[in-house]
Amino acid sequence: MALIVQKYGGSSVADVDAMKRVAQRVVDTRNAGHQVVVVVSAMGDTTDDLLDTAAQITSAPPDRELDILLTAGERISMSLLAMAVNECGVPAQAYTGAQAGIRTDTHFGKAQIVGMVPERVARSIRDGQVAIVAGFQGISEDDETTTLGRGGSDTTAVALAAALHADVCEIYTDVDGLFTADPRIVPTARRVRTISQEETLELAAHGAKILHLRAVEFARRYHVPLHVRSSFSDKNGTWISDRPANPALAGLVPQAALAANQEDPMEEPIISGIAHDRSQDKITVVGIANSPGMAARLFELVAQQGANIDMIVQNIPVTLENRANISFTLPAEDADHVMQALEAAREELGFKELKYNPDIGKLSLVGAGMRTNPGVSAKLFGALSQAGINIDLISTSEIRISVVTKLEDLDRAVQAVHTAFGLDSTESEAVIYGGTGR
Amino acid sequence: MALIVQKYGGSSVADVDAMKRVAQRVVDTRNAGHQVVVVVSAMGDTTDDLLDTAAQITSAPPDRELDILLTAGERISMSLLAMAVNECGVPAQAYTGAQAGIRTDTHFGKAQIVGMVPERVARSIRDGQVAIVAGFQGISEDDETTTLGRGGSDTTAVALAAALHADVCEIYTDVDGLFTADPRIVPTARRVRTISQEETLELAAHGAKILHLRAVEFARRYHVPLHVRSSFSDKNGTWISDRPANPALAGLVPQAALAANQEDPMEEPIISGIAHDRSQDKITVVGIANSPGMAARLFELVAQQGANIDMIVQNIPVTLENRANISFTLPAEDADHVMQALEAAREELGFKELKYNPDIGKLSLVGAGMRTNPGVSAKLFGALSQAGINIDLISTSEIRISVVTKLEDLDRAVQAVHTAFGLDSTESEAVIYGGTGR
Repeated sequence: MALIVQKYGGSSVADVDAMKRVAQRVVDTRNAGHQVVVVVSAMGDTTDDLLDTAAQITSAPPDRELDILLTAGERISMSLLAMAVNECGVPAQAYTGAQAGIRTDTHFGKAQIVGMVPERVARSIRDGQVAIVAGFQGISEDDETTTLGRGGSDTTAVALAAALHADVCEIYTDVDGLFTADPRIVPTARRVRTISQEETLELAAHGAKILHLRAVEFARRYHVPLHVRSSFSDKNGTWISDRPANPALAGLVPQAALAANQEDPMEEPIISGIAHDRSQDKITVVGIANSPGMAARLFELVAQQGANIDMIVQNIPVTLENRANISFTLPAEDADHVMQALEAAREELGFKELKYNPDIGKLSLVGAGMRTNPGVSAKLFGALSQAGINIDLISTSEIRISVVTKLEDLDRAVQAVHTAFGLDSTESEAVIYGGTGR
Repeated sequence: MALIVQKYGGSSVADVDAMKRVAQRVVDTRNAGHQVVVVVSAMGDTTDDLLDTAAQITSAPPDRELDILLTAGERISMSLLAMAVNECGVPAQAYTGAQAGIRTDTHFGKAQIVGMVPERVARSIRDGQVAIVAGFQGISEDDETTTLGRGGSDTTAVALAAALHADVCEIYTDVDGLFTADPRIVPTARRVRTISQEETLELAAHGAKILHLRAVEFARRYHVPLHVRSSFSDKNGTWISDRPANPALAGLVPQAALAANQEDPMEEPIISGIAHDRSQDKITVVGIANSPGMAARLFELVAQQGANIDMIVQNIPVTLENRANISFTLPAEDADHVMQALEAAREELGFKELKYNPDIGKLSLVGAGMRTNPGVSAKLFGALSQAGINIDLISTSEIRISVVTKLEDLDRAVQAVHTAFGLDSTESEAVIYGGTGR
């Protein structure tokens, strides 16, 4: 017997029929002898619909009220799913974030979990029930409803799995797991069978949309094995773990898939996957004084706007005496107000010009094997050069290389690099079943 | 300055535009110098839609999960309304039933309020905010979400008004107040300008749909003046109170309406209004043993089915030695299982026959003036007889006479009695603006 936390995104519970399919899967897991805790997102487009309605009322909804509004979506899905599981003859109880003991700070819209007290969920399991928990929501110390922001339901699931010492946290989505690249861009992308949490973190941080960064960070910190898989099929998905799988889980995985997992590790490619990201813009500050502290002052201003900077490059053109150019990338939604803040500080910073470029794309190559394998960057730059693609910025970590290209070149870049690193499968493995969940 | 609790039903907040209208009314009230607490129902058909979805999943949803599901509706409407009020430049905060301190017992679906601790609402008011509270919901001692059942939002509003010592509880609906009869049946019905809580209780208990019985009971017990009025107009509605209105409220009421309220009280009719009810069925137990305790046993069985009996008549036909017939009326939704329970007890009760009649209607004449005015029942029976309408059952209280007729005769009966008691207005006063709220 294993304790399994299953997380279902919005596309897995888009309508009543989908809800019934999920209920049946929960019941099947339980009938196979396991304890099940379910974390569920709002149904289909519910969250977007609620946001649309709020937008019709005000362009600046108060954060507190917006959180109350949005959490209604998960209340609906969790209570309906509990009904559906009950209808299959298995007792189930639904719990709000507050009832499940998900304690957060008071940052509405992007609250951080500060404590987990899932007593009622634990009691439910002991009593032989399936516990169904609303994703994405928590309660603050002063009794306010909060939401966890993007990837919130994944985070709820992993945090619950950690607090309950679950054997695995299954993240159900609409594809069969993680792929070596986005199958919509690279049809020959392979499913990744196992991957370390560290590599997953790099992929998530650099544009791979299947799992949210915070959830993976939680999983790594608390050693929660993740299994990303499709809610539309029974196939084995991608196991994300830094420790060997619990043998009790074997029953959850089809034998063929297990065999596939035991392929010769020597043949594992050095690259786990390629992530891409179209959501960043680039700002270049031209001719800023090259004096100590001026770059610091620049990024202080940017930080005051709440923008997370991704890549930074500074270069000192030979033509401008004692002046530098600084380029950085940041989320597109932050670009406007950062540009305004910089413009307002033109005199203080003493730069000549501000350039703004929204048409950039970022490709990131991730693999633990890169650490020990020389020549990875040479192969990467060679592949891009051969495809006639210019590189704008470069940044690296121990297990990742990222390059910025023109937006229009991004897809070709992903395809070229995928092929160059021998990641192409001989047959198309990827099936995308629906939209993407929250 | 007065403290005013305003309750808006589902039809008053059916869509974004209606929501904005309500927000404007709230803001106008506040700008007139008053403190405002708002209780709001779910938008339009939200509750019915949620029930429909649940019905597609199971025919027997667990009560606990059904309550969590339904309360999502008020979370949506209250947070949107708070946004809309904020958008008008007045600070507003939304509170769930739990946050507003509405403590209930654990009877999901029909919870009773056992305590009111609206500290956060009181603090909001002190801080100059408009507090917006979800109607219909509360929290039990063991931290479960509960709903208050039919008329729940009215009850929330009146309970809050009582706990906060509000000067008035305004119940906004889609008609201009209480009328002497349902204007859809009697187009010449008059708006009732003032009425006692006792009379309102009788009207509500006997089919008048504008206010729920429990809310009126609460208002009477805690001396909360009610003002039932339309959210679609500025007209004065119906004041329900056993004490004179707070002079501070005068500013809320158009002067013309105030003048109308000060009409010669000598001309007040002895009858306040006529309620009608199509929701009851009749069961007749023929030939039950006329022995002590047999009727008690019969009604014990009925009570075990959770059915509230309204009218009871027992008669002893001359043809049946020592046997009686007992007829009673009960809510139509309880008729099936009560019939089954009685059928199962046929031997024990020793009756000859069970008769079931769904085609009955009930007319109730209510007026405090009836107490001291002889001849009311004679006039009632005369009017019905002249209209060729047979009376089946009769029951009376000190301020009410109810008669049961054939369902098909009910409308004509209401019209005939309305005319006979001189209630007809010379012009049509009633405007019905929309559907009915919860």
